[in-house]
Amino acid sequence: MRVRNKPWAQPLIDAHPEIITDHAEQNTGHWQARFEKPQPIHVEVGMGKGQFIIGMAKAHPEINFIGLEVQKSVAATALRSALEEEPLTNLQLIAGAGESIETYFEPAEITQLYLNFSDPWPKKRHTKRRLTYKSFLASYQKVLISDGVLELKTDNQGFFEYSLMSMNNFGLVFDGVWLDLHNSAENVGNVQTEYERKFSEKGQPIYKVAAHFTK
Amino acid sequence: MRVRNKPWAQPLIDAHPEIITDHAEQNTGHWQARFEKPQPIHVEVGMGKGQFIIGMAKAHPEINFIGLEVQKSVAATALRSALEEEPLTNLQLIAGAGESIETYFEPAEITQLYLNFSDPWPKKRHTKRRLTYKSFLASYQKVLISDGVLELKTDNQGFFEYSLMSMNNFGLVFDGVWLDLHNSAENVGNVQTEYERKFSEKGQPIYKVAAHFTK
Repeated sequence: MRVRNKPWAQPLIDAHPEIITDHAEQNTGHWQARFEKPQPIHVEVGMGKGQFIIGMAKAHPEINFIGLEVQKSVAATALRSALEEEPLTNLQLIAGAGESIETYFEPAEITQLYLNFSDPWPKKRHTKRRLTYKSFLASYQKVLISDGVLELKTDNQGFFEYSLMSMNNFGLVFDGVWLDLHNSAENVGNVQTEYERKFSEKGQPIYKVAAHFTK
Repeated sequence: MRVRNKPWAQPLIDAHPEIITDHAEQNTGHWQARFEKPQPIHVEVGMGKGQFIIGMAKAHPEINFIGLEVQKSVAATALRSALEEEPLTNLQLIAGAGESIETYFEPAEITQLYLNFSDPWPKKRHTKRRLTYKSFLASYQKVLISDGVLELKTDNQGFFEYSLMSMNNFGLVFDGVWLDLHNSAENVGNVQTEYERKFSEKGQPIYKVAAHFTK
């Protein structure tokens, strides 16, 4: 999602160091200290406006969630949404890039990773920018625990075909594949993103794969 | 596909030992002798009425094809179709069961395997009957060469989801995934089955995965 710069974004981020940081590398190795209590950490890479990660934080108090978004204006919009809720002591936000995930987290600091409606980068010459390109998968594997889980949702057929290939070729073990998530009996507890609602309402199928790394 | 027994089936099979056998185990280890010349062998498990395997034999004279069908009446229908063609010296048919593939072929006798529009066996208690259940994959691996290829096409979403999971979990390496084969730029040279034409004309997507075993 490309958006215009919003002048209120940086001041809002600076005003809420208790929930968001644009210097995530200062917390590497001690993210648990920023939450009310130590619990498994789940990270969404590319949280957009934050609907998914906020919804997950509300639905799963037993997990600590971190949302990561590269565009500051978008991260600030997610922050604003989070501030509208009752204080969520199991949610932290990062204004930062997915490429930098290895500088933000220590090895095995994360239990689960989410990729939701990531930019499909459909052109072949942009393959390396896709968040399921092998270099990204290698980064995820480093920051995840052994057997750490990667969950991906998308409406983009080409990106899903590519991701199944790339994840399989990397050695990820599939735990579930859904080719039409919203018409599946196993959709219980699915927290939607803003994109997901929009595309699903148009009748487009939502694809999902859940998989784990082996070390 | 369940069909009524056809009284002409067995006599027609018996009359054409040069192209079809219902005692495939008599050829184990020396299938090449039944073809005009030794070439890589590709096998379709569940050829139905044979449209795919006959079309492939015509399109690829550089490959020896074997079509396998468990129901004799259906195998005989495929035979009748094959006999309507100019003699195909690179095509053999088997009236026999997919479960028995290890008795029909020696280890590494086959280069490539096709599964087209296999019975999805949607009920959970029938999982073991699906042609991508792990016991079948283990049999395919035995009769295939090292790095042997398995190609699967289906219109059945549930069967495709299951097959992606099962193949990935078995350790197969994906070479290609298509979620809408007929609207893909990479569909060149696709030989259709009778089912494929029917379902595709209804506007239903055709799914395909190509993968190889590693030993």
